This record gives sequence, structure tokens and C-alpha cells, in this order.
Amino acid sequence: MSGKIKVGINGYGVIGKRVADAVSLQDDMAVIGVTFNHFDYRIQAAAVKGYPIYYGSNSLKITESAVHISGGLDDLIKKVDVMVDCTARGAAAANKPAYKKAGIKAIFQGGENHELTGVSFVAQVNYAEAINQQFVRVVSCNTTGLCRVMSAFHRHDWVKKARAVLMRRATDPWESHKAGMVNTMVPEMKVPSHQGPDVRSVLKDLNIVTMAGTASHNLGHLHYAMIETTRSLSKVDVCRALREEPRIALVRAQDGIVALNSVIELMRDLGRPRNDLWEVAVWEDGLTVSEDEIYMVFMVHNEAITVPETIDAIRAMTGIESDGRKSIEKTDRALGITKEFLRGIEHQKATSISR
Amino acid sequence: MSGKIKVGINGYGVIGKRVADAVSLQDDMAVIGVTFNHFDYRIQAAAVKGYPIYYGSNSLKITESAVHISGGLDDLIKKVDVMVDCTARGAAAANKPAYKKAGIKAIFQGGENHELTGVSFVAQVNYAEAINQQFVRVVSCNTTGLCRVMSAFHRHDWVKKARAVLMRRATDPWESHKAGMVNTMVPEMKVPSHQGPDVRSVLKDLNIVTMAGTASHNLGHLHYAMIETTRSLSKVDVCRALREEPRIALVRAQDGIVALNSVIELMRDLGRPRNDLWEVAVWEDGLTVSEDEIYMVFMVHNEAITVPETIDAIRAMTGIESDGRKSIEKTDRALGITKEFLRGIEHQKATSISR
Amino acid sequence: MSGKIKVGINGYGVIGKRVADAVSLQDDMAVIGVTFNHFDYRIQAAAVKGYPIYYGSNSLKITESAVHISGGLDDLIKKVDVMVDCTARGAAAANKPAYKKAGIKAIFQGGENHELTGVSFVAQVNYAEAINQQFVRVVSCNTTGLCRVMSAFHRHDWVKKARAVLMRRATDPWESHKAGMVNTMVPEMKVPSHQGPDVRSVLKDLNIVTMAGTASHNLGHLHYAMIETTRSLSKVDVCRALREEPRIALVRAQDGIVALNSVIELMRDLGRPRNDLWEVAVWEDGLTVSEDEIYMVFMVHNEAITVPETIDAIRAMTGIESDGRKSIEKTDRALGITKEFLRGIEHQKATSISR
Amino acid sequence: MSGKIKVGINGYGVIGKRVADAVSLQDDMAVIGVTFNHFDYRIQAAAVKGYPIYYGSNSLKITESAVHISGGLDDLIKKVDVMVDCTARGAAAANKPAYKKAGIKAIFQGGENHELTGVSFVAQVNYAEAINQQFVRVVSCNTTGLCRVMSAFHRHDWVKKARAVLMRRATDPWESHKAGMVNTMVPEMKVPSHQGPDVRSVLKDLNIVTMAGTASHNLGHLHYAMIETTRSLSKVDVCRALREEPRIALVRAQDGIVALNSVIELMRDLGRPRNDLWEVAVWEDGLTVSEDEIYMVFMVHNEAITVPETIDAIRAMTGIESDGRKSIEKTDRALGITKEFLRGIEHQKATSISR
Repeated sequence: MSGKIKVGINGYGVIGKRVADAVSLQDDMAVIGVTFNHFDYRIQAAAVKGYPIYYGSNSLKITESAVHISGGLDDLIKKVDVMVDCTARGAAAANKPAYKKAGIKAIFQGGENHELTGVSFVAQVNYAEAINQQFVRVVSCNTTGLCRVMSAFHRHDWVKKARAVLMRRATDPWESHKAGMVNTMVPEMKVPSHQGPDVRSVLKDLNIVTMAGTASHNLGHLHYAMIETTRSLSKVDVCRALREEPRIALVRAQDGIVALNSVIELMRDLGRPRNDLWEVAVWEDGLTVSEDEIYMVFMVHNEAITVPETIDAIRAMTGIESDGRKSIEKTDRALGITKEFLRGIEHQKATSISR
Repeated sequence: MSGKIKVGINGYGVIGKRVADAVSLQDDMAVIGVTFNHFDYRIQAAAVKGYPIYYGSNSLKITESAVHISGGLDDLIKKVDVMVDCTARGAAAANKPAYKKAGIKAIFQGGENHELTGVSFVAQVNYAEAINQQFVRVVSCNTTGLCRVMSAFHRHDWVKKARAVLMRRATDPWESHKAGMVNTMVPEMKVPSHQGPDVRSVLKDLNIVTMAGTASHNLGHLHYAMIETTRSLSKVDVCRALREEPRIALVRAQDGIVALNSVIELMRDLGRPRNDLWEVAVWEDGLTVSEDEIYMVFMVHNEAITVPETIDAIRAMTGIESDGRKSIEKTDRALGITKEFLRGIEHQKATSISR
Repeated sequence: MSGKIKVGINGYGVIGKRVADAVSLQDDMAVIGVTFNHFDYRIQAAAVKGYPIYYGSNSLKITESAVHISGGLDDLIKKVDVMVDCTARGAAAANKPAYKKAGIKAIFQGGENHELTGVSFVAQVNYAEAINQQFVRVVSCNTTGLCRVMSAFHRHDWVKKARAVLMRRATDPWESHKAGMVNTMVPEMKVPSHQGPDVRSVLKDLNIVTMAGTASHNLGHLHYAMIETTRSLSKVDVCRALREEPRIALVRAQDGIVALNSVIELMRDLGRPRNDLWEVAVWEDGLTVSEDEIYMVFMVHNEAITVPETIDAIRAMTGIESDGRKSIEKTDRALGITKEFLRGIEHQKATSISR
Repeated sequence: MSGKIKVGINGYGVIGKRVADAVSLQDDMAVIGVTFNHFDYRIQAAAVKGYPIYYGSNSLKITESAVHISGGLDDLIKKVDVMVDCTARGAAAANKPAYKKAGIKAIFQGGENHELTGVSFVAQVNYAEAINQQFVRVVSCNTTGLCRVMSAFHRHDWVKKARAVLMRRATDPWESHKAGMVNTMVPEMKVPSHQGPDVRSVLKDLNIVTMAGTASHNLGHLHYAMIETTRSLSKVDVCRALREEPRIALVRAQDGIVALNSVIELMRDLGRPRNDLWEVAVWEDGLTVSEDEIYMVFMVHNEAITVPETIDAIRAMTGIESDGRKSIEKTDRALGITKEFLRGIEHQKATSISR
């Protein structure tokens, strides 16, 4: 394991546990330990997987335990090259001084502010910016999804003005018994919602405005985007740009993938761990291109989408790989990220059923 | 009752039962009968209210019954001046020949096509168009809501291009045990969704594109609108235009009205029948006006919003009132439709709580 | 108003606002004031109704306000004969000393313990116990529902052992945007759940065990009861006993009332304020009686069911009416509580439809 | 592959696709083909996995296709030893004559009646009954769950009378966009619900009554059971009996497994395919044993629970294994079915956290 990047995960929650599994699948990095503050089934499941367990707080003590505890956060800090901080919003910022003092690199999540690191990261947009940085923020799920889609167009200077309406999921599955909402929708009062400005921390000169709300489900976010273009484009142009962009996968309602639940069912059928969708799923048959505007709808799986970004950030920050495209390809190959979930789907349009 | 307009309601469902109650509250029209095809609690509740009951189908026969049956649809047709056809989508069109043959006027719902009547109606936009017409279509709930909001701006020639994303409710409360969806969202593939073109059957030269989807709740629809303007406007301009427009009521998140369920709870607290929201509820503190664009979010209560429109359509078609504004005021007074749900809300901003 | 009982409502939430409206409908009592701690649409709606508004906390100060504030809780205490304490669980107990010191009577809600008052109340079971008491606890919604149903059988000494499984609603409608759960069920670990023992604070010698859980909706609770009987009963016996018991209304799936939402839709159609169900709704066609056991299912509307109980408690505690049946009848008449929601439903079974 | 049992799966839906995957994991049987009637993402996912694809109907024709079609149902019938019929309720019975004529064995699902096969199957209860049978019905998910739990007690003659209340999920995840219910619960009117009698098609002399309903979620069923016992038992006795019974796994709320969603989250964390729970999950800390009654609550995962039963049925019917326990162990080892999801959970009770 000597040549591998030593990675710690501080906070073994929705993101932390996925990052741990993704790190384990790479051949150039290893999970040195994960931390926890609550002792429940999740940490036991981590022990089952063989991850060394540390206390998230240095003052925590467990006198007797079903799992072996290897030490406190301070102990873990001493052993790692990179700490992926997946603790709760706000808590993460408070950990930065300890990482700085120890001279280790650290990745923060999108719940933190851009100012915390000065570098906000989406691999396919600004990998180079993160190279050899000590602190990097992987932006939030919605911002990541928007950056991927918008960069497909922005790199061709096609975007005059982008407008998006994001319908968020109410809560995450694991805490759906104690959080969330019942039978309603909540509109966000702030316009632009925070995602619009946050996208510009990565895609710095994009003209984008976002509105947001929350709906009564827990499967992921649904984005509607309307993108005024600087030139007249065809649907073929737009689909090609999306296909060329990493980590965007086209899906089709005509294949029965008609809703968030059918995307997740496809992930289940394909054997994805935890039915995770790491890609942005863009509906190809919901994509309409008029003379000067693109209309599209896509799903962002908030539990999973930032996980491959985090792997790439580790490579950039440690300088183990200077070419973003190569890191993305390596990560994607290890996880099984794809541009097309289904083989031969291109030809299905010609399919007809006669009786 | 001799001088009153005689109104029949064909189809006593979500809309039909509300139209019957609304007609009953007017002093210039009366419910002559309502029809049904299914014998259940709803028709018994109609009988409790004293509405004469007819079979929706002429071939239906009930040999013995808990409610008195006054006849078939043909019998009802002979007794009315205006039939409000609230039968299921598609069924309504098939009834038109019978109405035509009997020489009575008929109102159809938004589920039917514009071509069925040639006149699509939203009282505050085109009341005059319906005067003395035999057949009029009251447009659907979403189209009605969009027409009210857009007409507030369009009558000042402010709208350069309007974009809206509509999140529909999954199903209606009464049938929520057997319809709808669970824990998902369904994006609509067609762009524009049918509401955009449908708005133009009323506001004929409005530039509007709509996208749509469905969410896992049953309380009503939530619209996000982004309206590019022809001139620079202030939030004061926009709010004034909305306040001057009938049947739009401003609500505020700062008053605790933060979601669909809190709008409905307010309707419950105010004693509204069936907690109906006849107005479009626009969030005032969610309304943002930039140099050249208005961003806003509003609720359309699909069970209720077209009910006052139907009352006005009856007046226009029978010619009993030629001035649209007067009919709207009369209807609104009878139902209790308002521009402000809460007294003194303007002053609340100055409220402070000290301990 | 001199001869009327002066009632204050401390806490204008889900229960408090309904108690205020119910008191207003009685001819022997009047609302002197209601208190609040949060300034939002609910208190504005109270002001619209004309209820005098007081601060719930004596230290609260509103310097300027959309509604007139008549004083603090201490001021209201001085003006009332009875305070109905509808504040949050736990807070209520802390208020008791102030009521005691002022020498006023007070009613507490089912969230408090039996020990707080020593008298736990369900009007049709133990009205006499509350007569002239200073402090009475109206038991919780589920306990009230169980007491009503069980007393119908227990008064005939029919109950050998009752078992019930209660599926609770996730949260109340007004707070469904910020509370509750998404797409799950939560089983309660404690057996018996608190309702079983709590029923025995009213029906002291009933043999009952309850299990509980929570489901992903907000319309009310659903109870399944299996009651072993001391003698062989027929369904006719059981239905008669239920019909003779106050505040139990039979509903039938064959009338289309097949789920919680259809019960609520019926309440909407019947014009009930806030679609409240004050009765226990027992499914008549879901009721099965075997040789030695009754199987039944019923709905308890948690927002509403304790409201008539509170009115009766006011009468008992003030001694204005010593006969429980008379108080119940008076309350029920004022509110419109019924034994049968639908006229003639008995004869519907004979109805047939031929084409 | 010559020595392996040749298995066909007719109907590649919720159960069919899981049976195919489970068959693939056994070393003594192989998937020869799967059939479909609808061409969508599911069949494409089947092709990705390498399952030969057949038309479910012999008259279906696909002229051009993204997947290779190997023939019709008749062709598949000729190639298999056992057909697992996972077609829709009702359709399955119609297929029996074709299987009979071809002389192949066939397994039907719990949606069919016991009479269709005369043998209703739960591996740990009546494996021997299925040996060398041509037609066997694997009982439904809820009946399977009840049989497993009840047999743990019934084999010791502990059960005097069992009562259970089953709260079903509204619909399955894959079709949650078009089916199900919204914000309600539906009580079943029939008592006993069909599960009680259906259990007796397997556990022939068990005294059991079931009541049922449906709740607004899609994760699985929740059972409340109250079991009167023939003798006085301790919780230790009851837990031991459950632990000795195959395919029952104890979970604990104190480990954070407090609801259906946390059970599923654990399945995700443990890497279960499609987050499947093949075991009955019984809450150990929700289990209460009184002098003469056991009270317990457990989860039945309707998508998955019958899958291992089907594998065992294949072995019994083909006579490849005559010892039920051996077949169960073989199946469970191949799938990873367990008695305890979490290592060392027994010792966790001693864990304490001090700061």
C-alpha cells in the first residue's frame, strides 16, 4: 500500500460512506480510516467492510464496543495524506485549522462556502485549478450537475443566458423516518437560489439564474433548464455536445425511463451499489431545441453525484495525475460510470412490434 | 326563481360539485339539477344539500334508492338555460350535439380542445368574447392561473418572453387512495407542455413557453415563472400590477405561508368551503425583479380556480351582464374572493418582538 | 355575555384554534382571548375572526403590529373562568401553578400525564368525574377514540381482552413542510404503546393492549381493533352498541368511503369547518364478528376529535350542566356532530343499477 | 452446463428479474432464458446481463431490435426443465396447460390460488411436500413472511391463536410514477384478509387471523403480530426460536434501525443487490413477551422475500436435493442470507460513550 495515496474520511454519512467505497475501488489510493460520532448500524456496516474506525471527536470514548476503535480524529490526521471532510455543514469549516496545522490536504463539501478554500471544483471544468492545492471544495450536488451540463455548452460559447428551476428532494432515504415533508411543495423565496451564484464559483463567466423548491420525495433532484443560445443550434448539435461531455448519460422516456423512480430502478437493475447514479441523467426525448433556446430536464442524484468528483480532487491535489481527462477516465472506469446505460439504445427507435 | 338563470351541472365530480355550490351562492342563477353516473357518498352529499339528482346516462336505472332521482340527462337538458359540462375528458365533447339540438348553452372544461367551442375563456382577459355565445370552454386550472398572472403584465405590454415551469400535483385528494404516485417526480417530455399554447387560446399574442412535471402530492400546482420584460420595472411596479388584477392574492413566506400546505391551512383557518383557493396565490417575498426580468412563484389550486370563471361564463353567455368587471366583482363578493387574505399584513414588516 | 362561561385559550395551534371556534358556537360560553408565541398567519386569521389576542408569554412585547394585542397571559388569566391550555407538550404543566394561584379552572391536553390533574376525561365515559374539578386532562386523540369505541362494548361487560394496532399520521397538515417523514413506516418499539395504559386512566378496568406505528401521511390515525368478547355476539348487536354510543359514526366502503382521504373528502362535501371529523368513523362493512371476537377498523382525526370533549369538560368543571348526556347533546347539536353522515344510507343496500 | 437444472423465467418483472439473478448465483442451475411482453429498459438490462431473451407471447414479433431475440415462449418451454412463471396475476394460470403439455415443471407465484397446484410452498415449513411435484405455488410475500415467523413458534406447539395486522406498501418502486396512492391509508374490509387463510395452505393447522391495510409508501410491508401462547414463555425463549429459524434476521432500533427506510439503508450499506432484504427482519427490541402472549413487529420486503423460496422449490421439484435444510443452506450461502446483519451486535448493549 506504500505507493498509494492515504485517504481519511472524516464523517461517515451519506457522502462519506460512498467516498470510502469509491476510494477502495481505485488502485492509486487507499482508505486509512473513517470517523464517526454516532454509534449505529452505519458504523457497524463500515466495520464489516474492514474500514478502520476512528472517533470523529477526540474527546469521545467508547468503553466497550462491538467494533474495534483505532483512535481519535487526531490519530487519523497523522496517518493520512488527504482528509475528505464529510462532516455536517458548518462543522467542516471548524476542522480546517487542524488539517492546516498537520500539513495534510483536505477536501470540503459543497455545504461549505467557496471562501473556505478559494477553489471550488468540478473535475471536467477546472481540474487544473486544484492541482497541488492544499484545500479544495467539491461543490454541492446541484451545482455539480449544473456545471457538467452547462460546461457542455459553455465550452463552445453557446450560452447567452441560462435559466434553471431545481426541484429538490425532501430529505435523504436514510433519515426519511425523521425528516422531510408530507404531501406538499416548498418554494424557495430567494432568487437566484444559491446554486446560480455557486455555479459561477466554477464556471466563472456563465450567465445563469436559478430558482428552487422542494418536493415530497427522497430520490433525488429534478432540474428544468432553459438555455438561450448565442447561435442557432440543432438537437443533433446539442446531443453531441452532451455526449462528448464526461459524466452525463442520456436516458429516454421511450425506453420506459419516465421518472426519477425509473432511473433508480435502472440503477438497481444494473447492479449499481446503493442504486447510485453518479452521472447526470438527461432525458434525450425531453430535450427540445428551438432557434435560440435549449429546453431540457435532468436528474441529479444528490447521494452520489459528487463522489467521482472527490476521487478526481484527490488526484489533482496530490499531483499524482496532472491531466484531468485521464483522472476522470480512470475514476469512471473503476466505478463503471458510463455515457450510455443501455447497449444498442440508438437502434431501438427502429424497433416495431407487430402481432 | 323565475328570473334566475337555470343551470344544470352534468357530472358531479371535483369541479361539478364546486360549481353547484358557487351557483347556489349567486342571486341571479340557480342549480336546477346535477347528474351522476356512480352512486356513492358524493351523490348522497349532493342530496343532503338539496340538489335535484339526475342520471348522467339516459339508460341508467336505479330501482330503489337512498336518494330521489328526478330523471335522466335528457330531462335535465329540457329544464336548463345553461349546462355546465363537468364530465370526464373526452366524454364532454360527445355531449355537445345533445346540447345543440336542445338549443341550450353549454360550458365545457379545460380538458377539452379549444376547437370544441372556438371560445376559450378567462373572465378577466376576454369576458367580452363569450357574450351571447352558445358554447364556451373555461380553460384548465393551470392555463387559468397563467392567464391571470400574465394578463397583469401583458395588458401593459410588458412581456417580451415568458417562461414557466409547472409542477403538477399527482392526483386529487378524493381519489388519492387509488391514483397518483409514490415518492417520485415525473418530468413531461413535451416542450412546450400543452399549457403554453393553451394560454395563447386566450391571450392570443403572448410569447410564452412552458415546461411541466408532476410531484408526489395532491394539494395543487406550483408554478415558477421567469418573464423577460420589454422595459425596466421595479418590484413596486410589478406588485401593483398584480394587485390591480382580479383573483390574484399575494401571500408571504414571512407570514408563515411557506408552502402549499400552509396556503391550504390558511384557507382552512379562514373557513373556506373545502379549503378552496379560488385565487392565484403569488408569493410576494419570492418575487424578484431584475433590470429586464421578473422571477416569481405561485400556487394554482386545481380543484377550485376555475369555479369563479364558470360563474362569469354563465353571465356572459346568457347576456345577463355585459360588463366583465361587474360580473367578476359580483362573483367575487358572493364567494368571498379577496386580494388580501389577511388584514393589516402591510404593516407587519414593522413588527418587532422584544423580550 | 355576563351569564356565559368566560373561556381563554392558551396556545392557538392545531387544537387551540378549533377549541376557540367550538366555544364560539355554544350559547353558554364565550372566547375571552387566545394567546400566541409566534406571529404568523394563524394569529392574523384569529384576529380576522375577532378573537382578542394576548401574548402567551408575559415577557413578549410587540412594538407595532398588524393585530391589536390585548395584553399578556397574566392579563388573560384574570379575565377567564376556565383556561384551555393548548400549549406544547411539557409547557402546559409549567402553567398550572399560575392557574392555581389565580383560582381559575384549567383543562390540559392529552400530551400531559394523568398525574398532572388526577382526572382524565372522555365525556361519554366519565363526565361525572370532572364535575366541579379545578383541573382536568382531556385525553389524547387516540385515547379518546379508543375510549369511545371500547366504552360501547365495555358498558355491556362484553370485553374480555382488547388488542389494537394504531397507525399514526406522520405529522399535521399545517407543519407538513418541515416535519414528518417520506416514504416509510416507523414501528413503535414499546409494547404496550402508551395508549393502552392511557385508556385505563379513563376506562379503569378495561383489559387492553395496544401496539403502534407511524405511516407517511398527515390525514389522521387508523386503528385496527380485535376485541375478544365475554359472550357470543352478532354483528347486529355490535353495530347497535356502536350506534347507541355518542360520537361514533358508521361509514361504509360500499358508499365509496374506502380510505382516510375519502372520509376527509366527505367532510369537505358536507361543509365541515377545516374538513374536521369530530366523530370516530367506524367502517361498518369492515366490521366482522366471530363467535368470540370483534374485528374492526376505524379512523381517528387527531386534529379534531378532542374538541367536543373539551367543550363538555368546560361544562362539567364549571358545574353549569351536571348531566353528561345533556352536555354531549348540546355540544353535538351546536357543532353538527352526527351518528350518520348520510341520510338513508340504510336503504342503499337495496339499490341496484340496471342498464 | 449439462448437469445443471435448466430454468426459464416467464415474465421478467419485479420477481422474475430477481429470480433470474438468484438462479445465476447457484452452481446447480442455470438461466436458459427470460421472456418479456414490453420492450423497455428492463429487458435491455436483462440483455446487458447476458440472459437469452424470448417473447412472452408467441404472436409477438419485433422486426428490428436493440437486443437479440431468441424465440417465443414455446421455444423456451422446449429448452427448460423448470419454468418459473412470474407473469401477472391471472395470466400465470393460463400458461399451465402449455407447461403440462410440454411435460416441464412449473413454479407459480402467490398471486395464484392454492388450487392451481395443490402445493403451496415455504421452504422451511414444507420442503418435503414439493419433492418431485410438477407444479408448485410459492406463496405470496406476506404469506411467506408470516409462515417463517409462525413456524418458529408453531413447531414447538406454542401458538394458541395468532393475530396479525399487515400494513402493505402502496406499490412497487419501479411503477411508483403511475400507481399507488398519495397521503392516505386504505383499510381492507375483508376479515380475515386473504393472508390468514393463505398461511393455512402451508401451516395447515395454525390458528391465525389477519387484518390488512395499505399505506403511502413503497418500501415493503410492516406486520404487527400478537400471538397468544399455549405456555408461558420468556423473551429469551422467543428470540432463541426466531434465531434458530432460517431466513429470519433480528434487527434493533437501538442500532438505529428504526423504520422501513433504515432497514433498506442497511441493505444498501451491506451491498445487497437492489437493496434486497430476503430475510424477515424482526425488531428484537420491539419484541415483548407477556405471560401468555408474544407481541412483535417485522418487515417483509415484498420485492425480494420469495426469491430464495423459489430457488429451493426448484431443487425440491427436480429432486436434486431431498433435504430441505441442505437446500436452504446452499441457497442462503449463495445469496448471502444471514441470521445477523451486523457482527458483534450482541455486545453493543454494553457500549457506553463518555466525554
